[in-house]
Amino acid sequence: MQLNLHQTHHEIGDFEVIFKDLTEILQRPEAQGLHVFPELFLTGYPLQDLVLQKNFYLEYLNLIDDLNIWAKKQYKSANENLSLIGGLRYTLDDAQNLLKVENVIYALQPGTELKVVAVKQLLPNYDLYEEKKYFSVAADSAVIEFQGKKIGLLICEDMWASHLHENDPVLQLSKKGPLDLCVNLSASPYHLQKFDDRLKRAFEVANFLKSPLAYVNRVGFEDEILFDGQSFVVDGKSLLAKADSFKKDYLQVALPKFQAHEAAIGYTKPVSWITQFTTRLTNDKKTLKNLSEQECFEVLEGLKFSLQEYAKKTHSSKFIVALSGGMDSALVLAIAKLSLQKNQNLEAVFMPGFFSSSTSYDLAHDLCRNLGVKLTTFPIKFIHSTIRNNYRDNFQVEMTGLTDENIQSRLRGALIYARSNETGALVINTSNKSELAVGYSTLYGDSVGALSLLGDLYKTEVFTLARFINSKYPGMIPEEIITRPPSAELRDNQKDEDSLLPYPELDALLENLLSYQTSFKELVNLGYKPLDIEKIAGLWQRSEYKRKQFCPIVKIKPKSFGFGYRNPILKKNVHV
Amino acid sequence: MQLNLHQTHHEIGDFEVIFKDLTEILQRPEAQGLHVFPELFLTGYPLQDLVLQKNFYLEYLNLIDDLNIWAKKQYKSANENLSLIGGLRYTLDDAQNLLKVENVIYALQPGTELKVVAVKQLLPNYDLYEEKKYFSVAADSAVIEFQGKKIGLLICEDMWASHLHENDPVLQLSKKGPLDLCVNLSASPYHLQKFDDRLKRAFEVANFLKSPLAYVNRVGFEDEILFDGQSFVVDGKSLLAKADSFKKDYLQVALPKFQAHEAAIGYTKPVSWITQFTTRLTNDKKTLKNLSEQECFEVLEGLKFSLQEYAKKTHSSKFIVALSGGMDSALVLAIAKLSLQKNQNLEAVFMPGFFSSSTSYDLAHDLCRNLGVKLTTFPIKFIHSTIRNNYRDNFQVEMTGLTDENIQSRLRGALIYARSNETGALVINTSNKSELAVGYSTLYGDSVGALSLLGDLYKTEVFTLARFINSKYPGMIPEEIITRPPSAELRDNQKDEDSLLPYPELDALLENLLSYQTSFKELVNLGYKPLDIEKIAGLWQRSEYKRKQFCPIVKIKPKSFGFGYRNPILKKNVHV
Repeated sequence: MQLNLHQTHHEIGDFEVIFKDLTEILQRPEAQGLHVFPELFLTGYPLQDLVLQKNFYLEYLNLIDDLNIWAKKQYKSANENLSLIGGLRYTLDDAQNLLKVENVIYALQPGTELKVVAVKQLLPNYDLYEEKKYFSVAADSAVIEFQGKKIGLLICEDMWASHLHENDPVLQLSKKGPLDLCVNLSASPYHLQKFDDRLKRAFEVANFLKSPLAYVNRVGFEDEILFDGQSFVVDGKSLLAKADSFKKDYLQVALPKFQAHEAAIGYTKPVSWITQFTTRLTNDKKTLKNLSEQECFEVLEGLKFSLQEYAKKTHSSKFIVALSGGMDSALVLAIAKLSLQKNQNLEAVFMPGFFSSSTSYDLAHDLCRNLGVKLTTFPIKFIHSTIRNNYRDNFQVEMTGLTDENIQSRLRGALIYARSNETGALVINTSNKSELAVGYSTLYGDSVGALSLLGDLYKTEVFTLARFINSKYPGMIPEEIITRPPSAELRDNQKDEDSLLPYPELDALLENLLSYQTSFKELVNLGYKPLDIEKIAGLWQRSEYKRKQFCPIVKIKPKSFGFGYRNPILKKNVHV
Repeated sequence: MQLNLHQTHHEIGDFEVIFKDLTEILQRPEAQGLHVFPELFLTGYPLQDLVLQKNFYLEYLNLIDDLNIWAKKQYKSANENLSLIGGLRYTLDDAQNLLKVENVIYALQPGTELKVVAVKQLLPNYDLYEEKKYFSVAADSAVIEFQGKKIGLLICEDMWASHLHENDPVLQLSKKGPLDLCVNLSASPYHLQKFDDRLKRAFEVANFLKSPLAYVNRVGFEDEILFDGQSFVVDGKSLLAKADSFKKDYLQVALPKFQAHEAAIGYTKPVSWITQFTTRLTNDKKTLKNLSEQECFEVLEGLKFSLQEYAKKTHSSKFIVALSGGMDSALVLAIAKLSLQKNQNLEAVFMPGFFSSSTSYDLAHDLCRNLGVKLTTFPIKFIHSTIRNNYRDNFQVEMTGLTDENIQSRLRGALIYARSNETGALVINTSNKSELAVGYSTLYGDSVGALSLLGDLYKTEVFTLARFINSKYPGMIPEEIITRPPSAELRDNQKDEDSLLPYPELDALLENLLSYQTSFKELVNLGYKPLDIEKIAGLWQRSEYKRKQFCPIVKIKPKSFGFGYRNPILKKNVHV
């Protein structure tokens, strides 16, 4: 029996294209054997409230009707084949109002209609997942037969039972007699080294069930979630095939026989979702683990892909970045340039103010020359002066201190968006995770943008990624951008580390706080200074209001800011 | 037996004050009988990820320890009394890491420790509620005995079983023999007419159980959720007592005997959460129901309260509003003024541009005179000109069209925040729900602010509320502000209704779309023009990116924008 794994890449709700692609794939002459498509292939994922929108589900139900008509009348095949396709099953009342929705696997064969053969049992409902909000569950897992082979069916989370789940679908499958194959239809979000996690779990499940396992994942970028694909097949002992990352792909593999792993492989259960957030800390919790070469490669691919996805889905072909002469904006511009496709346009704007150094200008200029990106220099001194004068005249007070700092940042935000209004370019945000965590960015100022590429990377990781890019593309980012001390240049002689901590120390402290798992007491015992903890934790706790108004962040870590990070703005802050 | 209902008002995580207030209440000489406190009284609600934060729960567990010590050693009473107190029960491992959390009722009596007597069974997990993410559930409901009386225990959602819940706690209670009382400890968010819903349900539950029911709700404003209090007692036939709204309050009532309601009262089950969102439409779905006098009163109280709560919890005592001479900002200023307390300060800024009419100036001036609010007029023409000139010089192109419109709005956003930086005043946002729905506001421009007071009120409701205020405070808002055609005044002769629909029609169409329950086909059948539907639905679907970066909105409807509204930015839009 042939296994055909279809690692697909579709926009949410793009029903016409989904119909076209599915019917075309199944009519290919080589189509025979078992075809497996990702979880919710027929709709896309995650849908959030779209699940509930009558317009959305009526259009989806038209797709189901069209597929049924096609399958009964036009879908013919000389070979026996079976497709397993992720989709939704709706139960409606007489007025077509919603009673129930399930996340299911449809079986499709030539000449028949779509038929539900499995319903998702474990609904992830932690961090940014909220499937219990929308979907009803099944009580038992399903096995089907095809060409005399018994195939166990799992949908994504079904293979990741934790103690939070009363029933383990894998355990249920194990009680249904020997399987010839287990398939998992997934829409599994990417984070660093996620493939390793999936593979490890796949070996556990395959050896527990004594069955090969085929894992099919979707590809895409949805607001902040990356789907990396990387579908694969294991026989229990070896990885037999693996699809590409961040690309539509297709694997064809003959059904393998189960091979026991050489090592004794247990079948573990993760304890709870909070402890699943593996931190990026070294064992002593005092240093952030550096991004490895492989991780840098993955992150770069993911960031380029997400930017292109955002542009494609918003019908944009232009990008704009506000350069400061510093590290973050330089890295963002380099990533955007590396992602650039034919007929796309990227431009940079450098907006020096009273406190910008000439070095910043030189470095912004050098960077754009290296990248072949058009740079416009737009000095803001004159406007800044006019604002200062008008402010003094109208409010009878001088703009000073933070007021004078923030107005520069907000003026730049307004100007970059003016250019965006004129050209239709997407403004790419340049904030990093360290800044976001302590609120060291100006709301409506340098925090503006359609999409944040670096919002899940600490400052020290930003440097690592920049060095990685320079190792692949020598001299792309001027070395001095990487080595000069970070500064917002909003007042004289401003240096980030004067008001914060040295970045390596800051980033480790933040990762401890953001994992939720390290208490202040433990931090003190680890050697962090109480005053530093108090200061940084205070900044973190008091800056929720800024993060609430921040743009979507490309998620590349188990625990990120964004939709899955939920902390009240209004609360009594906890003190050391 | 005396019933003591404590309608409390505390900040999330304000453990010191919670300890002080609880111990003080229980030591009052009149304290005797049954004391009931709200759901999660000991922590506040909703906690979101705070539940998971080690710092948070270790501090909370200190509170529990302190209360136990106090109750055993210091809590003495001549009278027999029992307190039922909402809190969390944590189960930790040896390293104090989180294994399990439950939303519980603690019983407390003089000389004893806190003891869990009930665990919440129904965890709301729809719209902005996500308790299944954090809490474990109990399998059965609990009854306790006190002074020979049997008391059934419910926590908030426990009395609102829908078909989504397999087990109905009220049904379970009904099987445990006759009750003398049923208590519900709630943290129940406010929306229009929510008290009527609660009362109706309370009569259903009381008559089903043949028991009086005491309902205790908390008071507060948490980011966007209002808790209105309005605790009450019913005997089955009548409302015996009702506490104040949006205020800490206390009810003391002798335990009543159950009285059957005069009407035959069924025990209904809501069908699903989506259909619980009662729309604000008339039966023909073509007109928005107008806010009644009582609703206007409630909304005004709620908005004033939320603004004061936000200020108190962020330690602000100053407010600032950008006036345009139009309806929205005038209403916001009036509400802020009506909420103002001693030692607080409110100021307004009018920032006329090239296209602002002199009428706008006159009206802004009249409004501030009426309200006794200091008005600063800050013309932006000069800065706008400088920006235009600099933009032309640097980009070799004139600022025109949308670019020139948006820069004015963003400049105003930057200036109001400059003033806020200088004085520490909270910027109150002035957008309404109609604008938010179609994206008719400028990101980082007129959409800025710490808190949106009107973001859950359609434009037609904004007018209704303004007229209500004028009926209570004659002449407060100049009549012409209410009668002049709405305009953003960002270009010559701009009128909102030229680019949209007349507001009454627009608002009804939006409510149909935002309830998710009306399909395009149904809208056409109702008589809406396909081109209008296409246009408005398109604007709505394409403006998700703006709403994602919007500030918190005070929630006053069953379905609001904000945390409970979740639609992907990146998706294929559904067409008519």
